Amino acid sequence: MSPRQLHLNVNLLHSGVYPSAWRLTDSQADAFIDIAHYVRVAGIAERGLFDAIFLADTPSISDRIDYRPFNALEPTIVLASLAAATTRIGLIATASTSYNEPFNLARRFASLDHVSAGRVGWNVVTTADAAASRNFGLQAAVDHAARYDRAREFVDVVHALWDSWEDDAFLGDKATGRFVDTAKVHAIAHRGTTFSVDGPLNVPRSPQGRPVTVQAGGSNDGRDLAAATAEAVFTLSQTIEDGVAYARDLRARAATFGRPPGSIVILPGLATVIGSTEAEARRRQDELWELVPIEYSLARLAGTLQIAPERLDLDKPLPDRLPLPANANHTMFQGTVALARRDTLTVRQLLRALGGGVGHRILVGTPEAVADDIEAWFRAGAADGFNLMPDVLPSGLETFVETVVPILQKRGLFRTAYAGTTLRDHLGLERPASRYAGAEAVAIPA
Amino acid sequence: MSPRQLHLNVNLLHSGVYPSAWRLTDSQADAFIDIAHYVRVAGIAERGLFDAIFLADTPSISDRIDYRPFNALEPTIVLASLAAATTRIGLIATASTSYNEPFNLARRFASLDHVSAGRVGWNVVTTADAAASRNFGLQAAVDHAARYDRAREFVDVVHALWDSWEDDAFLGDKATGRFVDTAKVHAIAHRGTTFSVDGPLNVPRSPQGRPVTVQAGGSNDGRDLAAATAEAVFTLSQTIEDGVAYARDLRARAATFGRPPGSIVILPGLATVIGSTEAEARRRQDELWELVPIEYSLARLAGTLQIAPERLDLDKPLPDRLPLPANANHTMFQGTVALARRDTLTVRQLLRALGGGVGHRILVGTPEAVADDIEAWFRAGAADGFNLMPDVLPSGLETFVETVVPILQKRGLFRTAYAGTTLRDHLGLERPASRYAGAEAVAIPA
Repeated sequence: MSPRQLHLNVNLLHSGVYPSAWRLTDSQADAFIDIAHYVRVAGIAERGLFDAIFLADTPSISDRIDYRPFNALEPTIVLASLAAATTRIGLIATASTSYNEPFNLARRFASLDHVSAGRVGWNVVTTADAAASRNFGLQAAVDHAARYDRAREFVDVVHALWDSWEDDAFLGDKATGRFVDTAKVHAIAHRGTTFSVDGPLNVPRSPQGRPVTVQAGGSNDGRDLAAATAEAVFTLSQTIEDGVAYARDLRARAATFGRPPGSIVILPGLATVIGSTEAEARRRQDELWELVPIEYSLARLAGTLQIAPERLDLDKPLPDRLPLPANANHTMFQGTVALARRDTLTVRQLLRALGGGVGHRILVGTPEAVADDIEAWFRAGAADGFNLMPDVLPSGLETFVETVVPILQKRGLFRTAYAGTTLRDHLGLERPASRYAGAEAVAIPA
Repeated sequence: MSPRQLHLNVNLLHSGVYPSAWRLTDSQADAFIDIAHYVRVAGIAERGLFDAIFLADTPSISDRIDYRPFNALEPTIVLASLAAATTRIGLIATASTSYNEPFNLARRFASLDHVSAGRVGWNVVTTADAAASRNFGLQAAVDHAARYDRAREFVDVVHALWDSWEDDAFLGDKATGRFVDTAKVHAIAHRGTTFSVDGPLNVPRSPQGRPVTVQAGGSNDGRDLAAATAEAVFTLSQTIEDGVAYARDLRARAATFGRPPGSIVILPGLATVIGSTEAEARRRQDELWELVPIEYSLARLAGTLQIAPERLDLDKPLPDRLPLPANANHTMFQGTVALARRDTLTVRQLLRALGGGVGHRILVGTPEAVADDIEAWFRAGAADGFNLMPDVLPSGLETFVETVVPILQKRGLFRTAYAGTTLRDHLGLERPASRYAGAEAVAIPA
């Protein structure tokens, strides 16, 4: 049996996870809308044998676009283009259950799985953002519980549609003229609280059976959704203890849904600032921090906490009372508050520790130190791998691939070649059987 | 001034427009889900200097999939992948106004326009198909007039979103740290009958300003929508007289919307069966027709007419009374009935004339004859070019590019090199200015 190995995704956040990444001399300011930039980063990640490229998303301008790049290009479009420019690396796109129709989403990801020969994952998000709701006919953000109710049913419908073609439904028999065995194509006839969907999907079963289901919610509802449906989770933990606690909790929840404990790959976010010496790494961190306008960092922190920026005093700690807002990003909120309380940071110190708006844990150091930290989290059971967020792209990823990956490989922690061809192969996930395999066909419309 | 020239799109209908195309010896049966097939066809079309690849679509299994390939892969995913495999040819995807949200659709096409460096068009359809409605929570097809009311507002919203970024809103000024000039990014604040959309789009203005708007409706409402909004139309005319009448009607309608008569490129569908001699072309037509199961052709014709197949007697003409059904494809219905009446065909003869389900006009002959016919339609003002539907793909397109294109070039009717880089360049369309250019900015959400 081969030893357990790390999984590595790269979170392809335009110019890098630092809000100031685009301002470095060797950065391309318009990288966020240049597909050539995405192709370049994907090529480096594939050379580094990463499991997947990960694209975050929100269907609105949710950020301070006057200061920094943002998620602009729609992720499935970018990944379809990257599928043509790469051959092995997985491709994970974020898409919202609140602002899509399950039929369209199931079809787009199944198509992408065909186009990429089985390399696709769907990161399920419910989109808390109020600005997004106003782009879809609503005047306020949808309530947390309602969003998750819809999400659960949405994922069920999408999975059923992905199952609606059995593996051997396509015949293409030139002699008899039979193109499809329609007894193996199933209407899903879903009648739920929110959705009514007949199906079947008009796309034959995709190479992975189903694209990989990824989830990122840290709230109670989010964890339950992940435990019930996700095959990989993208999490936020600021400390190894938090990471271990999260993993235990999630695996226990998965067990209550009858799923084996190893069926979910847990990938905390990890921002990296790497230098050939500790001092060089610190200098790079300083440079990136100094290029973030303070008013931006402050607005971003106030947004995470959902309080007025005026309540934050740069030279004092966070206000004492900070109740969890109803529509907050729970994980981001709790991670941020915990970080501030743990080291009793002033707001200014907290902003710096957050990289001016990075959000996730920032690891600053030499390649050795970064590899040590990754190994420690992995061995402690705090992570099955990481969703890597390089400070600057492509340079931060290039450094990681050239300096950290070889150390991890030498330690036997990371693959030295792709063993399989699909994202499921990379993540060690089974190819699911269709729920309809062998079932009596429900008549499909002629 | 350069003489007026032809425009040519290829309608990339999986294995070809003949329902039996997939059964030929040199056809690949699973081409409809193999991106390599699409890349191959796109490469041939680009070598032939075509204006664009056109992808039809319906979000449902609407055809008899037991007999033939169908539209499976979602068109914007396919085109994003083809954008990476081609450099100049335009890319037109069909998407429904009835089963999408304007924000998502505007964003996907704007993203595609960025990814392809300005080569994208959106073919606006309203989707009459009842099976589609049942995939989106409705139990019956939406009424014709209601579909077009929604479509008009939908197109308005999409155009406004595409305009929401002025051309020079993006700054990317590293020295000052100003990323975007938010005074040049505009909320659209749309409040309509069906949609309420704040905007702005979270994608900067795309290379073409707006992707090209294409339309295919032949009904009265469809023609009005095309006259008001379309820059190219995909039409169905069985005779040159019909083509001339359609073009006159559409240009007159466009004038009532204050648009110059030359602002719409008119492209009838044209199916081709080409042989090096007339006899060889006829043999190919016979072979393709004989491989179409008669029960399939009959079901398809009954579907177009929206009557029970039992009302059709193979050896008699069409029934006398055939009222236009409310939710029919008007153009397809009228073209089919006109063809049958004109030559008083029996149902069997009609089916053969329709290629067993091709729908559009079928031109059978030598390269010279095909070029003559194309030139005649073009000179008569029945067409600005064609949406070519080769009998079999890729072979039918390859023959067209190798034999018909050189004749058209020799006659000065078709380009000998791409003059520009965008789809607007190829079609001779202006790059529209943003409606908000110079306008006071409506505050965007921070």
